[in-house]
Amino acid sequence: MRVLIVYAHPEPRSFNSSLLSVALDVFRGKGHEVTVSDLYAQRFNPVAGPNDVVSRKNSEFFSLGEEQMHASTNALFSADVSTEIGRLMRADLLILQFPMWWFSMPAIMKGWVDRVFAFGSAYDLGQTWEQGVFTGRRAMLSISTSAPAAAFAPDGRNGDIERVLWPIHAGILGIVGYTVMPPFVAHGIPFIGEEAMNAELDRYHAMLEHIDTARPLYFHTADQMENYRLRPEIEPATPGQHRGPRSHMLNDSIPKRD
Amino acid sequence: MRVLIVYAHPEPRSFNSSLLSVALDVFRGKGHEVTVSDLYAQRFNPVAGPNDVVSRKNSEFFSLGEEQMHASTNALFSADVSTEIGRLMRADLLILQFPMWWFSMPAIMKGWVDRVFAFGSAYDLGQTWEQGVFTGRRAMLSISTSAPAAAFAPDGRNGDIERVLWPIHAGILGIVGYTVMPPFVAHGIPFIGEEAMNAELDRYHAMLEHIDTARPLYFHTADQMENYRLRPEIEPATPGQHRGPRSHMLNDSIPKRD
Repeated sequence: MRVLIVYAHPEPRSFNSSLLSVALDVFRGKGHEVTVSDLYAQRFNPVAGPNDVVSRKNSEFFSLGEEQMHASTNALFSADVSTEIGRLMRADLLILQFPMWWFSMPAIMKGWVDRVFAFGSAYDLGQTWEQGVFTGRRAMLSISTSAPAAAFAPDGRNGDIERVLWPIHAGILGIVGYTVMPPFVAHGIPFIGEEAMNAELDRYHAMLEHIDTARPLYFHTADQMENYRLRPEIEPATPGQHRGPRSHMLNDSIPKRD
Repeated sequence: MRVLIVYAHPEPRSFNSSLLSVALDVFRGKGHEVTVSDLYAQRFNPVAGPNDVVSRKNSEFFSLGEEQMHASTNALFSADVSTEIGRLMRADLLILQFPMWWFSMPAIMKGWVDRVFAFGSAYDLGQTWEQGVFTGRRAMLSISTSAPAAAFAPDGRNGDIERVLWPIHAGILGIVGYTVMPPFVAHGIPFIGEEAMNAELDRYHAMLEHIDTARPLYFHTADQMENYRLRPEIEPATPGQHRGPRSHMLNDSIPKRD
């Protein structure tokens, strides 16, 4: 198995770097090939834009999607993007290792997604979700938070961690076709102390040891959909979908069924 | 009123730039003071790290939170961060204008948050949510998507837009104390054509004209919480909180009540 770990932390001796070391131990111990994209060490540029390509399709108007498609078709990505796309395409298992900042990933990793998950390479029209480019491959998040686990309980102050992670699980990993594994989440890292941190490293070790038998996250499939929505007889079964009332936006903004 | 619009798009003639123009027209027309942080034009660096400060508290181990606190206390932020913190602190209304990429914001804007919403400046221990620094000020998202509205219906392929936006609404804006206004969301922009795009610009214009009478998003308050969770008698009333079963993560990973 070929593993790609994309790692984002500004401090080389951080707890996140210890999680990275655990993964290297487990996978190399099993004889797997592991590549690490250490975004801070690489000084990866996370700003998607004209510099992503060496030659543009349209020099008058910059459309990221169009330029990515053109670059995918004609091998025109800049060296940094091209290297990362190559790593991504070779990997059977993708792990994103980062500290949760503002309920999401650090910008340097978001930009890795913006630039490397390129239209025409990582996805295409009609090639998403279970028809996606990465079908049959696995991906997972390994993250730390600075809040206690209770704050991310279903009725926790910050909201249910599985709803907080939906945009990443669904909108980055699921949508390009990955089989998404349950995340490793280590809560309250700045406050729990060395002993508890070591226990978390052990828990991550055990989780990776058993990744082959873990049950992946469930996403609805295209055959359950009609006009981009679940067919009425399908019961919503993910953290992102529901049929209850809205609370933040008006229910009258829900599109009418055709 | 002082308005800060943080704008992220690589193409100066994009639909997002037209939304920016609408906001400038509306607010300047009312005599408000508007500042624009045009992140691509400014070549804003979104990578949080040692360069955020001109002098470190700890040169051996880099902790973003500790260095932000130290820089907040001693006025040690680098010029780019310091400028943006100044703009943020002066604004009565914050608008984040961006195209949704991967169910979230472009990296250049995420990095603006990572670096500018600094510990000791934008939040502090005990100074979050309704006790936050920005209590009494308003914030809102203005975004475009490339999917049809139906895909972001509650039972849509991508999940309910209000759940997709929860990490931003709650985890960036709500948590620092803003009164969060309903977002402006223009769906399917690459595909709807010029007439529909103009209609969306008109809709945004009308929405901003009436922002003073709009009802803000609801978040639960600290007095409804106990040990970081809603008290049992409080009914969850946001897109992030619930008491149903989990679907992506095991229910046995929910912390026990103390």
